[in-house]
Amino acid sequence: MASTLIADLTWYDFAERVKEDPIVFLPIGSVEQHGPHLPLATDTLLPLAVAQQVADRVGGLVAPPVAYGYKSQPKSGGGNHFPGTLSLDAGVLIGLVRNIVNELVRHGVRRIVLFDGHMENQWFLVEAADLALRDQAMLGRTDVRIVKLGYWEFITKATEKVLFPDGFPSWELEHAAVMETSVMLHIRPDLVREELIPDDPAADFPPYDIYPFDTRPIPPTGVLSSAKAASAAKGEAVLAQVVPDIADALIKAFEAPTS
Amino acid sequence: MASTLIADLTWYDFAERVKEDPIVFLPIGSVEQHGPHLPLATDTLLPLAVAQQVADRVGGLVAPPVAYGYKSQPKSGGGNHFPGTLSLDAGVLIGLVRNIVNELVRHGVRRIVLFDGHMENQWFLVEAADLALRDQAMLGRTDVRIVKLGYWEFITKATEKVLFPDGFPSWELEHAAVMETSVMLHIRPDLVREELIPDDPAADFPPYDIYPFDTRPIPPTGVLSSAKAASAAKGEAVLAQVVPDIADALIKAFEAPTS
Amino acid sequence: MASTLIADLTWYDFAERVKEDPIVFLPIGSVEQHGPHLPLATDTLLPLAVAQQVADRVGGLVAPPVAYGYKSQPKSGGGNHFPGTLSLDAGVLIGLVRNIVNELVRHGVRRIVLFDGHMENQWFLVEAADLALRDQAMLGRTDVRIVKLGYWEFITKATEKVLFPDGFPSWELEHAAVMETSVMLHIRPDLVREELIPDDPAADFPPYDIYPFDTRPIPPTGVLSSAKAASAAKGEAVLAQVVPDIADALIKAFEAPTS
Amino acid sequence: MASTLIADLTWYDFAERVKEDPIVFLPIGSVEQHGPHLPLATDTLLPLAVAQQVADRVGGLVAPPVAYGYKSQPKSGGGNHFPGTLSLDAGVLIGLVRNIVNELVRHGVRRIVLFDGHMENQWFLVEAADLALRDQAMLGRTDVRIVKLGYWEFITKATEKVLFPDGFPSWELEHAAVMETSVMLHIRPDLVREELIPDDPAADFPPYDIYPFDTRPIPPTGVLSSAKAASAAKGEAVLAQVVPDIADALIKAFEAPTS
Amino acid sequence: MASTLIADLTWYDFAERVKEDPIVFLPIGSVEQHGPHLPLATDTLLPLAVAQQVADRVGGLVAPPVAYGYKSQPKSGGGNHFPGTLSLDAGVLIGLVRNIVNELVRHGVRRIVLFDGHMENQWFLVEAADLALRDQAMLGRTDVRIVKLGYWEFITKATEKVLFPDGFPSWELEHAAVMETSVMLHIRPDLVREELIPDDPAADFPPYDIYPFDTRPIPPTGVLSSAKAASAAKGEAVLAQVVPDIADALIKAFEAPTS
Amino acid sequence: MASTLIADLTWYDFAERVKEDPIVFLPIGSVEQHGPHLPLATDTLLPLAVAQQVADRVGGLVAPPVAYGYKSQPKSGGGNHFPGTLSLDAGVLIGLVRNIVNELVRHGVRRIVLFDGHMENQWFLVEAADLALRDQAMLGRTDVRIVKLGYWEFITKATEKVLFPDGFPSWELEHAAVMETSVMLHIRPDLVREELIPDDPAADFPPYDIYPFDTRPIPPTGVLSSAKAASAAKGEAVLAQVVPDIADALIKAFEAPTS
Repeated sequence: MASTLIADLTWYDFAERVKEDPIVFLPIGSVEQHGPHLPLATDTLLPLAVAQQVADRVGGLVAPPVAYGYKSQPKSGGGNHFPGTLSLDAGVLIGLVRNIVNELVRHGVRRIVLFDGHMENQWFLVEAADLALRDQAMLGRTDVRIVKLGYWEFITKATEKVLFPDGFPSWELEHAAVMETSVMLHIRPDLVREELIPDDPAADFPPYDIYPFDTRPIPPTGVLSSAKAASAAKGEAVLAQVVPDIADALIKAFEAPTS
Repeated sequence: MASTLIADLTWYDFAERVKEDPIVFLPIGSVEQHGPHLPLATDTLLPLAVAQQVADRVGGLVAPPVAYGYKSQPKSGGGNHFPGTLSLDAGVLIGLVRNIVNELVRHGVRRIVLFDGHMENQWFLVEAADLALRDQAMLGRTDVRIVKLGYWEFITKATEKVLFPDGFPSWELEHAAVMETSVMLHIRPDLVREELIPDDPAADFPPYDIYPFDTRPIPPTGVLSSAKAASAAKGEAVLAQVVPDIADALIKAFEAPTS
Repeated sequence: MASTLIADLTWYDFAERVKEDPIVFLPIGSVEQHGPHLPLATDTLLPLAVAQQVADRVGGLVAPPVAYGYKSQPKSGGGNHFPGTLSLDAGVLIGLVRNIVNELVRHGVRRIVLFDGHMENQWFLVEAADLALRDQAMLGRTDVRIVKLGYWEFITKATEKVLFPDGFPSWELEHAAVMETSVMLHIRPDLVREELIPDDPAADFPPYDIYPFDTRPIPPTGVLSSAKAASAAKGEAVLAQVVPDIADALIKAFEAPTS
Repeated sequence: MASTLIADLTWYDFAERVKEDPIVFLPIGSVEQHGPHLPLATDTLLPLAVAQQVADRVGGLVAPPVAYGYKSQPKSGGGNHFPGTLSLDAGVLIGLVRNIVNELVRHGVRRIVLFDGHMENQWFLVEAADLALRDQAMLGRTDVRIVKLGYWEFITKATEKVLFPDGFPSWELEHAAVMETSVMLHIRPDLVREELIPDDPAADFPPYDIYPFDTRPIPPTGVLSSAKAASAAKGEAVLAQVVPDIADALIKAFEAPTS
Repeated sequence: MASTLIADLTWYDFAERVKEDPIVFLPIGSVEQHGPHLPLATDTLLPLAVAQQVADRVGGLVAPPVAYGYKSQPKSGGGNHFPGTLSLDAGVLIGLVRNIVNELVRHGVRRIVLFDGHMENQWFLVEAADLALRDQAMLGRTDVRIVKLGYWEFITKATEKVLFPDGFPSWELEHAAVMETSVMLHIRPDLVREELIPDDPAADFPPYDIYPFDTRPIPPTGVLSSAKAASAAKGEAVLAQVVPDIADALIKAFEAPTS
Repeated sequence: MASTLIADLTWYDFAERVKEDPIVFLPIGSVEQHGPHLPLATDTLLPLAVAQQVADRVGGLVAPPVAYGYKSQPKSGGGNHFPGTLSLDAGVLIGLVRNIVNELVRHGVRRIVLFDGHMENQWFLVEAADLALRDQAMLGRTDVRIVKLGYWEFITKATEKVLFPDGFPSWELEHAAVMETSVMLHIRPDLVREELIPDDPAADFPPYDIYPFDTRPIPPTGVLSSAKAASAAKGEAVLAQVVPDIADALIKAFEAPTS
């Protein structure tokens, strides 16, 4: 089967494909509030879609996404207290990604991309990568490479201007806002409630974090800055730029010598 | 949104639905070889489909499935060594399900179904349920109930006869065989390679397990008994019987007094 | 010393015996209710006795049993709520067996049998075996083999007929019932209260599990089907058949090539 | 049944006995070299025997012993490298004892004695007790008390003189030496090889520990000081003194107010 | 004793001070390369110094710092491969901070600040805070608040201009650079080798991370942007601004209602 | 830099020093009550000071101390309930020391001393050393050696007489008493409140431990025997003897063949 999705392949297909030393993408998302207009799975759907397009370009494969992510934080996701936000403890998320990486390696994969869709996951992916490489070193394998990335980190200044012609607020407040909403309008318009897109002013947080959360600075909708200016066209523009750029970057990345 | 899939809901939808004390289904599958004709995600796709239909009947919700499961064993799944079989350590699987259950409870859910699609998961789901209930007891909550089931356990003798008019081999050898292939032909025919359905004789295993696996008794295709007699009609018949039966059983199950 | 019990040997004896590459048996039991007539240690006493007899035949050794097992379940053991049932968390049981296997290997043992006496232990033994083999691989040792078995799996159809001349109910309901009671009457009659053997009808469970337990379908005695027909003679017949059969199977098992 | 051994009781017996608020003893031993004359299970057999006698005096119960202990150290047990010494990682031993304590409490036991037979276990029993009490506090129970003891700590100066009429070396070197050999000669003479009792001079260790072990100061027999003067009469004298003393101490201990 | 350092207090002092409901600061640092001119403990010394000054203002206490931190990353610290960089696994760092927080709470502290000096620690502190609050909830305590902050997050635009009159590169490249070097010159000039301060151009990293590290974009000195412009006066200016600002922010932070 | 403290070195210094195969000391202390006259960090300050002096003699390095230790026990430290006593769970302490040892080895260190200042830490250091050596073996390194010691174990009979001219009570009761107070008076007189040194009679404990603690036999000051006879001169005498003795012992220790 020509699918890039491991889920759709038979084991015969998989065995065949692995012989070509494919880059394997593991999308890692979350079940997290994304305002009144985006579905809870937004952070999984986005990296899955982008990873599939990149995989198509580089002849790669996409593993079934990790659909649950780390605990939503007020400054990047509104906070874990919003209904429907189902999050993992750090140890479980680290263990899960570490296991999947080790399993891919066991079957012959040597180039793996942790393709993140949820800011809060980042550091736990670093740890999963480090521990998996240690596991492999203990098993005598030292030829594995793991790239970790957030697709949004590849958005260029030019694309920022397309998204925010009136000036870019900050990536930190880009939760359920213009970028995410635009890409969702492009890839899954059926799951966006355009009529409910809020027009909240950008949230303003103090320079510290407090637990339990102080909910006062958190916009009640869970949207950290206005998503009103979102459009499917903008979403398409984002993918048109980041997909080839990520593909190019990865080809170079996996050529680098290991330290 | 009227979807039964939590992934598709906004947090507003979720908050609204939880007020009705819905039964929430967590499908738990695997990435496991299913012969030359079925996709690696078979054990996730099947319980997801069944759970959705049951949820529709009982006004329930379906959480994003756990897409990776416990290590495939020769007697029930062919074995973990088949290419593409990506499995979790027990501790990770237990932690993952325990986390998700606790998160559902945190948001007000009190009736949860661990809806298993992969035989090897079973005992780790028992532990996840037990530990989650202990966590909740430590937090002072004692009104949570968790049902654990494999949808195939609900297939009646009558349906067995539909599936196997010439006599039922055994559920243990029903891996990538008549039942699973039939239901896949019914729900996702696009993912079944009918032309490749093997006609292996039923596997014959000794009454012990050995590690590392002795691969000699394992059919090279990974199919534990012939799937030749599979058909979409049989698959439809299975769902037509088990969906209402599971729905009825759950309604009664959650009425039971806690011990 | 000629004992097969490692507990009874001095370290000099052990060192001598290990040179012969013995099969080492680790009985794994439980402290679990077994009705009004059998002791709480039944699931430890039975595999210990059978393992000793098999070890005698194959020149093997028996390690001190793991006396505590996984949480009793209604359908296979009545349930963890019965007084005196002292069970382990999955992580502890896995870690314990993994440690013991690794220690045996450290001292030169290469053929190990996880000899189970308690159904609920099974999957955690699978995980312990898998993790121990991974540990050994990390240490560079790949010549270790581990067999996992339940002695009851070796009972033939012929012996079933001896045990149940009027028809076999099912192994799942064979808890504290005819088979276990018969073998106990044979090996430890001093610990069986024959006058208290109950005559419960076979338990009838729904095709799902619920947590906390629904105690209504559980027989109040904890016996899942009648033990009335038990006898020491039947117990003797069981051992007379399974002991040589297990011995033969193991000799062949350890000859198999590793995958 | 009148047995003090939980292993021998039925669940009905156990339920009856727990109503009397019995002191429950958990013997914790090891599988550890004990020279050419004592069996590997010495550290389990001794506390089991002593605990049973104390339990008889105070109307207590004895749980199945923990038969595997912490890693043998040169200065107290000769070292983990001696053949047949099968030891647990700290985390497993702590988890095991913590689990058993929690299970006893779940069934109504409130007075528990961790009855140690192996010096190396001590601090891990402290941790197990602390964590189990924390678990119970999280479940809202604060009426549990746990005593941890080594039976040898109760030997009086007078009994020391009986054991060592020519002067006491030190408890630290009392491994497989006069005291342990004497008590074994008293309780299990069948397992002592009197003809092989060594007459090693007392070991002399530097005031530090080194890993991996420096085996040069370790007596090749594994006996840390001479056991030649051992006798069954001395063993009997030890038990005649410590059993009533431990019984008396425990009755007082469990009367103390909790802090 | 009037010290703000818990390390210097007797337990009588501590008991007295805790009665006043002090804010307790836990500095969390690292042992990490900081170029040829700064010591490996820089990330511990800086938050310890700042926390002490803030504690003086608010009548708080400073706990002994966590001197080891999470694994250094190329983009924020040069990378874990630099000699002398001694880092912790995520699980250990989380467990350590969680333990210390729980212990402070056990002794009556209710207001705790995780005072971070090492960017890589951040998300593991979030997890430690979350798990400690869960532990406390399980023990029935819900009046604990934990603030997590990096002192550098409080540097104002005005102070940025003092530090970088010619334009601010980015906080991400501020490793062993102008800010850290300046504050070290102010608080511990004895530990700064001014003659060795490098004048590296700012590092330029791709928008992804790769494991094992690609060392090519990492400046060989480990300094991510030039530190040449550092001065003790600038360091003093930083503290003069951030200390009162953090003090004010914390007083307000702990007044916030809990969600 | 000539410092023996790793904390003070730059990474260039560290890299240079490691080439000489230095002995690296890891002081491990606690935050524990030490009576009305000694600071909570006493158990960290003492081994740090002694380790530095030994390191000076042998050309070694001292890693940043582990400032938190295992839970204080009544018989050796008064008990964990004293205000300000901040302790770690066993698993965290083991993990922390194991991590640091592994990190030192990663950078080329092969001779490591776990330099303990807190009796309660001992057995957890044993486990940390054992697990770190296992980790290294899994990575293929077998040339690492770890010494574990308590500096007080090196005090000779002659020095005991200097400390206790009127007879030595016992090391077990030497908590916050003559020895520790004397050495603190010698190395950190600014942190000793001489006017508050108590003159408690020696504590008298039963031969068992009980949890929760029975606080009745614990002196209310937390001092287990009188510290009145302490003096800076005695402290100086202790260091004058133990420092060269430890240095000599270590040089010999690391020459020993590995077993």
